[in-house]
Amino acid sequence: MSQATRGLAEFLAGLRYEDLPQSVVERTEDLFLDWLASALGSQGQHPIPLFERYAQKMGPADGNCAVLVNGKRTSAYFAALVNGASSHLIEQDDLHNSSVLHPATVVFPAALAAAQDLGKSGRDVILASVAGYEAGIRIGEFLGRSHYRIFHTTATVGTLAAAVTVAKLLDFDTEQFLNCIGSAGTQAAGLWEFLREAADSKQLHTAKAAADGLLAAYMTAEGLTGAKNILEGEQGMAAGMSKDADAKWLVDGLGTRWALAETSFKFHASCRHTHPAADALLDLMQREGLAAEQIAKVTTRVHQGAIDVLGRVMVPQTVHQAKFSMGTVLGLLAVHGKAGLVEFDAFSLTDPRVAAFREKVSMVLDPEVDGAYPQRWLGRVEVETVDGRHLQGAIDEPKGDPGNTLSRPELEDKFQRLLAYSGARTPEQGSELIAKVWRLHQLEDVQVIA
Amino acid sequence: MSQATRGLAEFLAGLRYEDLPQSVVERTEDLFLDWLASALGSQGQHPIPLFERYAQKMGPADGNCAVLVNGKRTSAYFAALVNGASSHLIEQDDLHNSSVLHPATVVFPAALAAAQDLGKSGRDVILASVAGYEAGIRIGEFLGRSHYRIFHTTATVGTLAAAVTVAKLLDFDTEQFLNCIGSAGTQAAGLWEFLREAADSKQLHTAKAAADGLLAAYMTAEGLTGAKNILEGEQGMAAGMSKDADAKWLVDGLGTRWALAETSFKFHASCRHTHPAADALLDLMQREGLAAEQIAKVTTRVHQGAIDVLGRVMVPQTVHQAKFSMGTVLGLLAVHGKAGLVEFDAFSLTDPRVAAFREKVSMVLDPEVDGAYPQRWLGRVEVETVDGRHLQGAIDEPKGDPGNTLSRPELEDKFQRLLAYSGARTPEQGSELIAKVWRLHQLEDVQVIA
Repeated sequence: MSQATRGLAEFLAGLRYEDLPQSVVERTEDLFLDWLASALGSQGQHPIPLFERYAQKMGPADGNCAVLVNGKRTSAYFAALVNGASSHLIEQDDLHNSSVLHPATVVFPAALAAAQDLGKSGRDVILASVAGYEAGIRIGEFLGRSHYRIFHTTATVGTLAAAVTVAKLLDFDTEQFLNCIGSAGTQAAGLWEFLREAADSKQLHTAKAAADGLLAAYMTAEGLTGAKNILEGEQGMAAGMSKDADAKWLVDGLGTRWALAETSFKFHASCRHTHPAADALLDLMQREGLAAEQIAKVTTRVHQGAIDVLGRVMVPQTVHQAKFSMGTVLGLLAVHGKAGLVEFDAFSLTDPRVAAFREKVSMVLDPEVDGAYPQRWLGRVEVETVDGRHLQGAIDEPKGDPGNTLSRPELEDKFQRLLAYSGARTPEQGSELIAKVWRLHQLEDVQVIA
Repeated sequence: MSQATRGLAEFLAGLRYEDLPQSVVERTEDLFLDWLASALGSQGQHPIPLFERYAQKMGPADGNCAVLVNGKRTSAYFAALVNGASSHLIEQDDLHNSSVLHPATVVFPAALAAAQDLGKSGRDVILASVAGYEAGIRIGEFLGRSHYRIFHTTATVGTLAAAVTVAKLLDFDTEQFLNCIGSAGTQAAGLWEFLREAADSKQLHTAKAAADGLLAAYMTAEGLTGAKNILEGEQGMAAGMSKDADAKWLVDGLGTRWALAETSFKFHASCRHTHPAADALLDLMQREGLAAEQIAKVTTRVHQGAIDVLGRVMVPQTVHQAKFSMGTVLGLLAVHGKAGLVEFDAFSLTDPRVAAFREKVSMVLDPEVDGAYPQRWLGRVEVETVDGRHLQGAIDEPKGDPGNTLSRPELEDKFQRLLAYSGARTPEQGSELIAKVWRLHQLEDVQVIA
């Protein structure tokens, strides 16, 4: 039995609300609000209604747990499923850089559904979510870059992060945590292959990760046992799904390093892999006073992961695919100054100026950028102007990263913009939700979050 | 886009009941009855009641679909889940040799649940189940031996087999089959690591495979798209989970080779990897008139897969683990002449004669046996007697294999024995169920199977 996996389980079992620094508590509320915005912002968009219909067909007609996009109540499993699907669609949810995990979209659907089912408080949700972030991020780091080349980490590791979150709400001891991690790890799945045709699997992945993680924890509470060494064992996750796993990450800085505080908020509405180059280009254009038409060529110097994820998309066929097109993202910024949800819908597929700019953009692997990744996401672009100048743009921390983060007013603004985008809630309802989330640490009952 | 995956999807979309040879139809009924026995035979045994409680907590209180072990009705998802869990517990369900897939435990729970939900006939169930067997077996062969070393094929490939089964009940066209296979493949999960502590994951695996496959098909019917090349793509299943995948198997003999007819029925109540050596020892003991006490040493000559799966268990701690102990299985046969469910419960952990025999048994890798595997499961044993003789036992086709199969009376006998073992049904109820299954091809409504 590995000491690293056991060490992680002991930490999770022993973690108390009183152990959390105030900054971590507040940051969890920030992340929760940002997640709520992402979930509500997808209302009505394909394929979210498909998940709603599936939940109505297979689940109970009522229950304790809120489906955010339609206000219906159901059982915890289906609330986690639909909220997990809906919070990753518009590509506005958070990201942890070095694990390449989007924690919010798997942790919070599980946390809210289980807490509403079990009658838990806001403090319970915060504590459980911190546990989910701390475990999920470390397991993502443990599985390494080789895992991410084939597997969608937010799907695979997300199942474990969600399971740990619900396990903490169920107040598990160390042995129960080990069983629960075993039952979650053996359900972990999700392949990047869907990107080629922009299939809907990304929503299936986050839906299933949140719901299957919850299932693992509830079944553990019933008495189901799991593999105690699912992460490191000879026939476990690392053996089957990684070539560069390193157990040291599983216990890295437990109790002193708060990985949750290292997460980044999304600023542009595109795949996070486009953001470093996007910010570097924006910075360069502002510095030089350049307009889109003055640019002849853009070479983005990127890490391998960006090429793996973005390299497939040449001419995007859907708005969702456009968010994975480096040329389109840079084109929106160069031509319209923003790459938000509104700009994607209005311009990403049909604006000839954006399409023309897209053709000017290429990606090349940069050893420095790749070497720094995934701890740091460096932005490097080379621009050739129509009048023959060669310019370079560089940023070391994209907007939304911990050292360049969003303030609470910026988060509130993003929240209201996403609600307005989908029409899921009125601005007044949005303000009420914001007020509830900023008091999450005092809420006796999280039923009011719906 | 791969021609092999597309070829498989085209075959599945075009397959009609009229295309099935009579022998395949009858064999499907045989396999269905054998599956029903396995599902009912586990009633009341840990961890099945945990799945029942979970389904009651998360699912609707009523529905069209039967949970076999408790007679309750629920939605298709939860019926598939509980019936998938229960039909693999007692290790009496079927096996396909070269794919190392247990098809019944994933195909039939999905088939019955979806057919009851959709109001389909017995012929529909037969056709859909054949589709699930043909696809699942070929996908298992495609992923190869390297996959099985780490991944539990019945879990991973089982998700695809179940999805294809339900897809056929939903009468999908080729494009829908491709989407459905994509959504199933990206959910495929299940690691062997749980064997080390005899954890409960095997039931979780078959439960989830059946239910997640059903989910993939229902979501495809709603309009969810999936990766079109999930099996062979650069970031698909083979890329992530196999080192020796070969696409030729995906279309091997479609329409002429009926892989369903190649499956084996379980005769002993133990892991199938023990059966070749078990039958070889039984044959040798009968031939030589040997009693257990006359045997000093047994060397079983086995394939690598047997060592991978059975090699962990030295002294079994549970009855379930005993089914994975080569020494215990051979001990039961040598001392008691049988290794059925009754013998496992009564003698596998506590009988000192069985324990003594267990200590005499070892496994060694045999190049001939390993080379024939997984197409053929050869049984080879070397026995040293207490009076110094060296004897050899060999069988080329274990009892239950296609060339040495169980007749309908033998299947009926096994069915009634498993029902009596668990007490799930009276012999009269058992006889009624048998009569229904032998008329499955004529049943207008499969609601009566419950």
